Amino acid sequence: MVDKKKFKFEIFAKDKNSNARVGKFVTPHGVINTPNFMPVATQGSIKSLDGRDLAEIGIQILMTNTYHLHLRPGEDIVQKFAGLHKFMNWNKPLMTDSGGYQVFSLGAAQGANEDNSASSGRIGKFLESREEHVIEKARIDKHREQKVRFAKSDEEGVTFYSHIDGSKHRLDPEISIRIQEKLGADLIVAFDDHELPFWDHERTKKFLERTHRWEFESLKAQKRKDQFMYGVIHGGLYKDLREESARFIDRHFPGIAIGGSYSTKNTLHNVLEWTINQISSDKPVHLLGIGEIEDIFEAVQRGIDTFDCVVPTRLARMGWVFTFPPEGNVENRFRFDIAKSKFADDQGPISSNCNCLVCQNYTRGYIHHLFRSRELLSYRLITYHNLYFFNNLMKEIREAIEIGKFTELRKKWLRL
Amino acid sequence: MVDKKKFKFEIFAKDKNSNARVGKFVTPHGVINTPNFMPVATQGSIKSLDGRDLAEIGIQILMTNTYHLHLRPGEDIVQKFAGLHKFMNWNKPLMTDSGGYQVFSLGAAQGANEDNSASSGRIGKFLESREEHVIEKARIDKHREQKVRFAKSDEEGVTFYSHIDGSKHRLDPEISIRIQEKLGADLIVAFDDHELPFWDHERTKKFLERTHRWEFESLKAQKRKDQFMYGVIHGGLYKDLREESARFIDRHFPGIAIGGSYSTKNTLHNVLEWTINQISSDKPVHLLGIGEIEDIFEAVQRGIDTFDCVVPTRLARMGWVFTFPPEGNVENRFRFDIAKSKFADDQGPISSNCNCLVCQNYTRGYIHHLFRSRELLSYRLITYHNLYFFNNLMKEIREAIEIGKFTELRKKWLRL
Repeated sequence: MVDKKKFKFEIFAKDKNSNARVGKFVTPHGVINTPNFMPVATQGSIKSLDGRDLAEIGIQILMTNTYHLHLRPGEDIVQKFAGLHKFMNWNKPLMTDSGGYQVFSLGAAQGANEDNSASSGRIGKFLESREEHVIEKARIDKHREQKVRFAKSDEEGVTFYSHIDGSKHRLDPEISIRIQEKLGADLIVAFDDHELPFWDHERTKKFLERTHRWEFESLKAQKRKDQFMYGVIHGGLYKDLREESARFIDRHFPGIAIGGSYSTKNTLHNVLEWTINQISSDKPVHLLGIGEIEDIFEAVQRGIDTFDCVVPTRLARMGWVFTFPPEGNVENRFRFDIAKSKFADDQGPISSNCNCLVCQNYTRGYIHHLFRSRELLSYRLITYHNLYFFNNLMKEIREAIEIGKFTELRKKWLRL
Repeated sequence: MVDKKKFKFEIFAKDKNSNARVGKFVTPHGVINTPNFMPVATQGSIKSLDGRDLAEIGIQILMTNTYHLHLRPGEDIVQKFAGLHKFMNWNKPLMTDSGGYQVFSLGAAQGANEDNSASSGRIGKFLESREEHVIEKARIDKHREQKVRFAKSDEEGVTFYSHIDGSKHRLDPEISIRIQEKLGADLIVAFDDHELPFWDHERTKKFLERTHRWEFESLKAQKRKDQFMYGVIHGGLYKDLREESARFIDRHFPGIAIGGSYSTKNTLHNVLEWTINQISSDKPVHLLGIGEIEDIFEAVQRGIDTFDCVVPTRLARMGWVFTFPPEGNVENRFRFDIAKSKFADDQGPISSNCNCLVCQNYTRGYIHHLFRSRELLSYRLITYHNLYFFNNLMKEIREAIEIGKFTELRKKWLRL
């Protein structure tokens, strides 16, 4: 069990019109001001940025992936370096996930592009339309089918094959926690499995019982006292199961994470509302794999304290740059594609009211050229800007809640 | 013709045992301390590094490639941004090459990997053994053959097809200088063609007459007075032709560049000795596309002031990290392959006596992991370190010449 003196979560401002709240989470490696957004350092680095860049942007915590680090370089190597903080030279808070989701998503799809990875893959995240939903369902079905061949769940855990070299691996609650203890992040996650959004109530309920058991075993397996464990609420799209799961996780875990399948934005909102009401208001609540701007507002409003998602970093490598309002809005999802020809001679910064180093020093035209030329610097500049954008948004949200203006900020951003 | 008040090249120390010298080249965008090494920003960026990184390392000048920038984004776009300095946000000296070599190397080999590009490709550079020489000759023959199909020289210039999209382009002295004037670098290069090392005397002589004519026409085509033009000495492996070329270039140009084919290290040394004796000692001398450590010492000793080469940056992306003596030596070519398994748990820095930010903050083990995982940050960290290594070497060389210890430094590095 965690040594509670090493961690302190305090709420010090609440929005009067919603569940939005401002807090401070003190961990052995420093403070996280909440609501906060964690960029994802899948393999132990934010792609193209070093620690100095991240500190300069103001990043307070990174999420890293247990599945990836277990496969490469392996937790024993990381332990030789005295843990991830030293290995990565990142002396601020870190979180590791349980590996459960990646086994589901990557171990299942052996040979899939590694880049389509990380907790961003949470099912339902990008499902904006019926068409996307159909495509996503087909993808999940395909994974599920392959899972039968490449990753096999049994009652005690999952056996899977590495997406890197095909080698055989096993994850269960005990193993996941042993790995996470060797990695040594400040915040860790109980080992869970993943439901699919189209499962019926009976199947989801049966799945939930097993995932609860695994999570509880994770808690019992914990030996280090300087790591703070989150349990993950599951239950798919079923209100009674989500409520039951929320109560179970709240009863046993110091930290509450919300995961599993949402399917659409509306079901995400429902899931958040069902669960938040069931959990203690003094515990930190993390929403796994969510990172669209609109979702962040909706989730903060419903009481979420932290997020992790590859959206700002992965989209950066696809040429998508985030832009502040008024140019950025719900319709364009607060971003545009820098690869478009119209930016070739654009001498303005990415976002005209952005104070980041990239916007102070480089033009859209230059970044357009670098991106079209596949220059490595383009990924770096866009990633830097996008993370600054997210970090600044979270800062604006915290400030707005503190001065009682969260509703106004939300309306301004979402043009409500 | 250049406005000589805008450029000032001064020699203020000379080695008593060799032609090595220390100087200062003042340009409209700042000072270059010589001997100096220019990293190559092929497409307008040093792959993975931004201007702040380069300034921090102490880089004083970058080489960029006219061929690449002409094809993408095009010199008219760059001109809209008031030239390359503003476009790249690099307010220090810049040099552009003539585009001649890239047409030869890339235009000729349509569809070839763009990364095998830049002036580093100078023929003969990496030829260490007879076997390599044979392979290189076969490569050149193949290019030459394709050149007949994809790039066609005539008496006035070269018609070629873009390696990016196959579009048809033309370069001649007038066009090359117009492009370089729009790009607006401080130092520019006369348009030349390229001989092959196995051509006989007659063919090389005939080629030399044409390339001299093109270079002279380049000088006549110059309109801007704030750009300093280098003529390029050619003549293959023939002493009389190299001497003739050196005298011709020295007669007409303010800056002297040495280019063309060297074939082996020995012929490079010969070419340098033949030519240096023919040129005015008060002119800056640039050696095109050379960047192995041993060659730098040999060339500085023979009177070279500046170099450009993709060696430190391209090798970085292949996982080669440079290391200072005593670990680095002529046998290992001052580098090792960070991808090797033995570095997985190595907690030391890349080079134990290196003061760069990467060596101060990151271990071989972490960089090994990043490189093996193809993380973008690995290219950035290694490129940063390698450029620091080169920049520091040049600084050591300048200091040694100034205090009369160049021979000692050379002996220490080359273990003579």
